Amino acid sequence: MDLLVHEIGTLVTPLGEGARAGAAQGQLQTLKDAYLVIQDGKVVEVGSGSPPAFSGPSLSAQGKLVTPGLVDPHTHAVFAGSRVEEFLARTRGQRYTGGGILTTVAAVRQANQRELVELARPRLRRMLEEGTTTVEIKSGYGLTPEDELKMLSAIRELGQTTPLTVVPTFLGAHAFPAELSRQEYLDLVVEEMLPQVAGLAEFCDVFCDQGFYTPEEARRVLEAAKRLGLAPKLHADELAPVGAAELAAALGAISADHLLHISQAGIEAMARAGVVAVLLPGTAFVLAEPYPPARALIEAGVPVALGTDFNPGSCPISSLPLVMSLAVLKLGLTPEETLCAATLNAAAALNRAHELGSLEPGKLGDLVIWDANFLGELPYFIGHRLSLAVVKAGEVVWRASGF
Amino acid sequence: MDLLVHEIGTLVTPLGEGARAGAAQGQLQTLKDAYLVIQDGKVVEVGSGSPPAFSGPSLSAQGKLVTPGLVDPHTHAVFAGSRVEEFLARTRGQRYTGGGILTTVAAVRQANQRELVELARPRLRRMLEEGTTTVEIKSGYGLTPEDELKMLSAIRELGQTTPLTVVPTFLGAHAFPAELSRQEYLDLVVEEMLPQVAGLAEFCDVFCDQGFYTPEEARRVLEAAKRLGLAPKLHADELAPVGAAELAAALGAISADHLLHISQAGIEAMARAGVVAVLLPGTAFVLAEPYPPARALIEAGVPVALGTDFNPGSCPISSLPLVMSLAVLKLGLTPEETLCAATLNAAAALNRAHELGSLEPGKLGDLVIWDANFLGELPYFIGHRLSLAVVKAGEVVWRASGF
Repeated sequence: MDLLVHEIGTLVTPLGEGARAGAAQGQLQTLKDAYLVIQDGKVVEVGSGSPPAFSGPSLSAQGKLVTPGLVDPHTHAVFAGSRVEEFLARTRGQRYTGGGILTTVAAVRQANQRELVELARPRLRRMLEEGTTTVEIKSGYGLTPEDELKMLSAIRELGQTTPLTVVPTFLGAHAFPAELSRQEYLDLVVEEMLPQVAGLAEFCDVFCDQGFYTPEEARRVLEAAKRLGLAPKLHADELAPVGAAELAAALGAISADHLLHISQAGIEAMARAGVVAVLLPGTAFVLAEPYPPARALIEAGVPVALGTDFNPGSCPISSLPLVMSLAVLKLGLTPEETLCAATLNAAAALNRAHELGSLEPGKLGDLVIWDANFLGELPYFIGHRLSLAVVKAGEVVWRASGF
Repeated sequence: MDLLVHEIGTLVTPLGEGARAGAAQGQLQTLKDAYLVIQDGKVVEVGSGSPPAFSGPSLSAQGKLVTPGLVDPHTHAVFAGSRVEEFLARTRGQRYTGGGILTTVAAVRQANQRELVELARPRLRRMLEEGTTTVEIKSGYGLTPEDELKMLSAIRELGQTTPLTVVPTFLGAHAFPAELSRQEYLDLVVEEMLPQVAGLAEFCDVFCDQGFYTPEEARRVLEAAKRLGLAPKLHADELAPVGAAELAAALGAISADHLLHISQAGIEAMARAGVVAVLLPGTAFVLAEPYPPARALIEAGVPVALGTDFNPGSCPISSLPLVMSLAVLKLGLTPEETLCAATLNAAAALNRAHELGSLEPGKLGDLVIWDANFLGELPYFIGHRLSLAVVKAGEVVWRASGF
């Protein structure tokens, strides 16, 4: 797809192909009175002043702010059923222990692939309308070879039939099903599931935490995954400091996610190993848990990304802009760090920083026109839907009515 | 306007013309397979099963949830300028003291009535699309007779030119302008402004708090307002326990708002006097201040209403559904209490519980069709725009695309 986006009041984008710790104003490119040319779905030119002659379609940003399309590097957006009751029980004082995952597992096992796809489609549409052009989705609500494959097939189908780039992650080691012993299930994941999902998933994730997989168990799963070409990720130290961040560093994981209870040693290990920290403040907000130590991570040199963690239990938030507001309000990130975290660093957490996450020649033409004049307004207008238009690979996939 | 709303999966509404403390499931009316008939803008019939023959227009709720239109009883939605810088400074550790109000005052004084109206129009449109059909708006960013009148005229014009019911409140005693002494400004409010605004405003509000108006000063303003027919309201005990709630009770104020630092004596006095507590958890969330003691208020018998406090400084949140999520998550309200607080009790805080805030014969035909099956889903889907259609006085004023 070809497209000229012109009359951009302000274009703000990180630059480069690698994640970064923080993002000072100078590390982002800010262009006033800008334009952007997309050919065959990719950015070919970004500049200020008069745009070049262009024979293809064009879109005026009407003087507004443009950023790269948002990248959500951690979701569980494919699920069936609801966990409203668990949500309400928590507001009456019950603490989250992850036990409700099996509620969703039961509902997902009852659904077929088509039902899973149709349930997820409006969720992804809503995310797209809010500015998310790339989304990672995990399996992990099946916990049998058949049901995990069904989830990953549904995730693949969503990638083929929606405008978003959909990145599939195998999370068979999300919980332990009731019908098998711990050891039986671990063997099943490693010996049966992993070889079968290797063609469907790009990443393998493990819920390494108190009451879930131990670091030793997680290591076994992730080392087997690596041998099959699946890059490791970890749900790490969300409920307690079990050393999952240290494990992520030791394994060379692409990201370690959550990190509410990360240790100082874990922070230092992640910095040395270059593991991206995917922070999910929506979950801490919903669960009323302490927020992850974002500033300490950045100051130690760890690249921070932001995701929604959208799931029916611990975080029914699918809006990455709302999470960006939380990042500024509750994690102490600057608007510049927040943008970098929700674009380039999130792309790096999905091994895609070479092809998306910033607006520069060679990268995908994924962008959002916002009803804002400068970057600081994005987190400020909390809960407003500020997106005016969303472009994916040069195609206008959503416009606000009247824009 | 006449309208039949049919194929309502579940209709949930409080009943009655008075505010209530809490709302147990039994205090709300929940009808399955329901319909609702509106004639001349007012509800004439609510029932279950087959709707009556109706010759006017009809709207199918497609089996979804219907509630009364939301009522936002506390906003500062008319303003000029922005306070992003103050917002960002707070995230770097500066505490809110209310001092930024004068920043907005400077911008409002520069704007004319037409500009104020055009700035506010899209804000009210966004609120309407999220389900708010009645909104209170305060003056208080003018602080001269001319500028306060300009704000109230803009508020009146918004009521005449948007679908919402707009309720005007005079808040001349919002801050102290730099150009007058404290005593000079108080005299100006009481002797000049109040007589002039009496025809434009329904309520008179005072920011009674540490660093702002003392209880004695607030009493003088509100007693003068009462003599002119303006019902008293108070910004009460937001920053410190100064006895503003007690004053609200003594004056027979219609509401006392904020109440983050209300004393036990204030709670008891409000309960005895029947003053509505308008809680604004969005502000506490943004400012990272303690939340108001919602459960203690309810348990003491105080009716609790919810508002956004939408303003450019302490709360750039205009979504009452997002505030309803905060009420469940952070104030410990049940979904039933939350609905009552954002409809009937909010109407009571605006002296309109006799004409709106619930769906029953004689009240305005203001309702929302939600992309939800039952009430608990409203606060659960945090930050999702769940509204599918909004009806104001029998007129369909907004529909989601595709609905």
